[in-house]
Formats: sequence, C-alpha cells, structure tokens
Amino acid sequence: MSRRKTLSDSPCPVARAVDIIGDRWSLLIIRDAFDGLRRFGEFQSNLGMAKNILADRLKMLTENGIIQMVPASDGTAYQEYVLTRKGEGLFPIIVMYRQWGECNLYKSDENHSSLIYKHNRQPVGAIHLATENGAKLQKDDTTVKKIA
Amino acid sequence: MSRRKTLSDSPCPVARAVDIIGDRWSLLIIRDAFDGLRRFGEFQSNLGMAKNILADRLKMLTENGIIQMVPASDGTAYQEYVLTRKGEGLFPIIVMYRQWGECNLYKSDENHSSLIYKHNRQPVGAIHLATENGAKLQKDDTTVKKIA
Repeated sequence: MSRRKTLSDSPCPVARAVDIIGDRWSLLIIRDAFDGLRRFGEFQSNLGMAKNILADRLKMLTENGIIQMVPASDGTAYQEYVLTRKGEGLFPIIVMYRQWGECNLYKSDENHSSLIYKHNRQPVGAIHLATENGAKLQKDDTTVKKIA
Repeated sequence: MSRRKTLSDSPCPVARAVDIIGDRWSLLIIRDAFDGLRRFGEFQSNLGMAKNILADRLKMLTENGIIQMVPASDGTAYQEYVLTRKGEGLFPIIVMYRQWGECNLYKSDENHSSLIYKHNRQPVGAIHLATENGAKLQKDDTTVKKIA
C-alpha cells in the first residue's frame, strides 16, 4: 500500500486533509485564489513556479473539487480557476497560517501584508478559534478520540 | 534566488509559514506531537515514514523552533521531542485541517477520529474563527493589504 493510499484512507481527518492540501504550492495557489487570482498566467507569474508543476497542482485541486474551471469573466476564450464552496472552506486554514507567520516569522522592523476589513481598511486583529456558543477553544481542554 | 529563499523572505506571512510547515510530513509530526507522541520511535511507528525523512523533518522543525529536544520523561537516556510555545501556536491550523477534512473527505458511513473535551468526552462541535470582540470572521468581509 502506497503512502498516498494510506493517508487518503486514514481514519484521521487531519491526515486526509493534508494528503490533498499539505504541500506549499497547493496552499499558495489556494491563497492566491482567495486573493482573487483566476488565470493560469496570473498564478504562474505571482508564484514564479514552473508551468508543469502549476498545471499538475491545478489538475489535482480540480480533481479534488477544491478549484473549478470556469469560462473567462471577460468573455474571452481563456479558462479561469476559481474556488468551489469546498475550496472556500479552506479560508480558516489560510488565515491561521497567516496569523502564525505574522506572530512568529517576522522581525519587529519587517513589513508584511495584512488581513484587513473591506469596509474600513482596518486590520482584522488577533483571531482565535471559537465553538458554536462563542467559547474560545483552548488546546489544553481538548483531546483526540480515536475510532474503536 | 532559490525558491526557498524567495518564500522565507516573502512579505506574505502565509508564504513564510507554509515554507516551514507546508508539507504533509511536518504537519503530521506536529499533529502527533499535539496527540502526545514524544519519541522518535513513536513518530516513526505511527507515521510509517522512512527514518531518514523523519530525522530530516524533526531536525528542520527543531531548527525552526517548533519542536525542542528534552530528556526522556522517564529518566532513561532517550531524547524526546516536544512542541515549543511557538509550535503550540500551530494548534488552530491542525484543528482547522481536521474540521475541513471531517466535513469534506468522509462518506456518511465512514468513521473518523474526533476532537473531544477532556472533561466530559463530548465532541467539540463546529469551530469558527472569531475576532477579539467575539465576532465571526467572514471571508467576504476581508481582503489582503499588500505592503507598499
């Protein structure tokens, strides 16, 4: 049994998820899609990645229902790549990568891009995980229950 | 300039973060560390990965201050690997990978492991991102401001 087969059959949802979107290029393509990039050339130019690797990742993300191809928004013959509803569900992962990076990977005098509100252009500020009743989810309060 | 150099210097915190923890093995090692695994042999046996790849990833995670080596908790001569405070900051990313996987990658009759509360063994339920004032963070309300 190959590694990929093992992860895609895993009883652990983290394992199945990282099997699909646990590589830096897929994550950066998804980030760019959230930022509004839609065309192959836009992704290629922004990410500076080889065309064959980009084509491979877009194919994989499309096959997994994270991105879909749609006709170009300007009526030209281009294909565009947009997130599906399933793909949009990855927003929290990208946001939490962003926050962790901001907090841990910049010197105090280094600038970085920021998540801001559209309506007033103000920074979103610190984000935490909350349960349905609004309680903050704390690591030490939880554990993982394996299946029997 | 190499790809890694480009990402580690990026003005985008998502890019810097996925440069370090944007591969499935690192993410699964971190997941296992949250689940309480501490020894090389435990990671190796649980993940079924080649020893040289595991050693390489643990070295990288240690060099990046995500995991630290500590003396064995039972007083033997073993080294153990535990998350640093910086590493513990990755909890939201692992939890959101889990939730996305649960929602999107299982058939209705498939079982998976679950995040539960320690005190009552009940499932944590749906998680969302919240801002400091408790408001739910909605994708469509935000955008990314690049640096000038």
